[in-house]
Amino acid sequence: MADIIDGRAVARDLDEKTKARVDALVAAGHPRPGLTVILVGDDGASQVYVRRKIKACEKVGITSTEHRLPADTKQADLLKLIDELNNDPTVHGILCQVPLPDHIDTRLVLRSISPDKDVDGFHPVNVGRLSTGTGGIVPCTPLGVMILLGTVIDDLKGKDAVVIGKSNIVGKPVANLLLDAECTVTVTHIYTHNLPEIARKADIIVAAAGAPELVKGSWVKPGAVIIDVGITRIMDEATGKEKLVGDVAFDECQHAKAITPVPGGVGPMTIACLLANTVQVAERMAEGEVATESDYADAPDRSMHGSAS
Amino acid sequence: MADIIDGRAVARDLDEKTKARVDALVAAGHPRPGLTVILVGDDGASQVYVRRKIKACEKVGITSTEHRLPADTKQADLLKLIDELNNDPTVHGILCQVPLPDHIDTRLVLRSISPDKDVDGFHPVNVGRLSTGTGGIVPCTPLGVMILLGTVIDDLKGKDAVVIGKSNIVGKPVANLLLDAECTVTVTHIYTHNLPEIARKADIIVAAAGAPELVKGSWVKPGAVIIDVGITRIMDEATGKEKLVGDVAFDECQHAKAITPVPGGVGPMTIACLLANTVQVAERMAEGEVATESDYADAPDRSMHGSAS
Repeated sequence: MADIIDGRAVARDLDEKTKARVDALVAAGHPRPGLTVILVGDDGASQVYVRRKIKACEKVGITSTEHRLPADTKQADLLKLIDELNNDPTVHGILCQVPLPDHIDTRLVLRSISPDKDVDGFHPVNVGRLSTGTGGIVPCTPLGVMILLGTVIDDLKGKDAVVIGKSNIVGKPVANLLLDAECTVTVTHIYTHNLPEIARKADIIVAAAGAPELVKGSWVKPGAVIIDVGITRIMDEATGKEKLVGDVAFDECQHAKAITPVPGGVGPMTIACLLANTVQVAERMAEGEVATESDYADAPDRSMHGSAS
Repeated sequence: MADIIDGRAVARDLDEKTKARVDALVAAGHPRPGLTVILVGDDGASQVYVRRKIKACEKVGITSTEHRLPADTKQADLLKLIDELNNDPTVHGILCQVPLPDHIDTRLVLRSISPDKDVDGFHPVNVGRLSTGTGGIVPCTPLGVMILLGTVIDDLKGKDAVVIGKSNIVGKPVANLLLDAECTVTVTHIYTHNLPEIARKADIIVAAAGAPELVKGSWVKPGAVIIDVGITRIMDEATGKEKLVGDVAFDECQHAKAITPVPGGVGPMTIACLLANTVQVAERMAEGEVATESDYADAPDRSMHGSAS
């Protein structure tokens, strides 16, 4: 039987560490870490997510602030609010819940959040930092994936990892993180011809395709580690009730070394990583490290291609 | 026999297209595209590279400006110059030749170049744009690799590509570009255990390890396409003279469909792509497109992971 990687327990551990970091900051006289969430309009699902995030903040001692703006908020007013938050020393993380109303340019708004306070890690500058392995804020779900892997694999160096799905929010950043950890990384997607064969060679499978039970037992090498990022609500034919499933046919994969369940695997890590990111920003601001040059891309070495031919 | 991909000829074609774009801009009354190169100190190799770039500008009608600064230039003065160039409407591309003297923070200087004029494509914002497939300036050598591939493969979709080497300047950006083109992409490096086996499955091999003749004939599937980015000067034991070799044992790979020679493959593309990038900036500035929101990261969709578990 595969070990079940208990995401809820790992998230709880992470929350405890986060809480200890919060306490240490406050004890040292620094401002209490603060997360500000902006919610525009009254999308029902968004309200649930925001409530969940705010409740999680309480648990670890992070101050949370919610800005609820009406659906007809002008883009300029939203940008003005973000600018104020960017410059507010008591605000460490800024999160603007999407989707935004149609009259608002979502890309423009999200990139107006300071990269140093972008606790979601989606700002182009943070994406660039991640891609070049030069620090910055790591997006929450990919960070959660790496922490879960760390609970079952001591050293990722040289492992063959296969990432299924190449989204900007999971597949690509996870691939970058695995590459930074010195894995050999294959990124697959809808146009990949021979996915079962490719998956079967993997020591690590990260499934983030959003395709329910795509990964079959026969695709998995005995002893592989599987992180299942997918979560889809489907009808269970046996019971006639809805249920949540991941991208992996869980029951067929008991010959894996370890596997995350759905729910209870990657999901709980996402908010825990959001909190950890917020505290990281607070720590960096406390140390006066924000907006320094330290985490920008390595200087390119052009010598290799500036010469000859 | 493998087809030889003639990088010099492809670069000449690209230069002709670039020249036509320059002529069209000037004919339409826009400023002539301009590339500014900054050279600090008197590194001999750097002087050669800069001279080559400036000469290439002349060929296609790009105005070039060279700022030669003494080795003891203060960092603040260099940053001031870059700030002026960022705001100069007659300057389209800004290139600061590295290495810079030790007292200068290279990362800080390079990121002070406006991402919109960063014709090298190394600014974190451009790296982020590339990683998320949302436009921006593509670094020259990776762009050259993709253009060369395009001369021998009509549609990259679904091809198995293996990138050898994960540098920030070649391996990672090439992997991103191949992924954008819907290839299945495996990135390998020094910690990869089974490189010959992995390479043998590839329809496309991009060798960018900087390891002379690393890729043997037996690693290459018949019909594969090989782009050799490496270039190393070695002693030819047969003749006792130095020669340039790539990362691929060229003579052993005649069962490939096509292969780039070294020299004369990727090398000539790099400067041609620098010129093309400069004209691209000029075109965008002519259209008033620079610094709009259009090429920032896609809005993340958090719905998948904001819910459940």
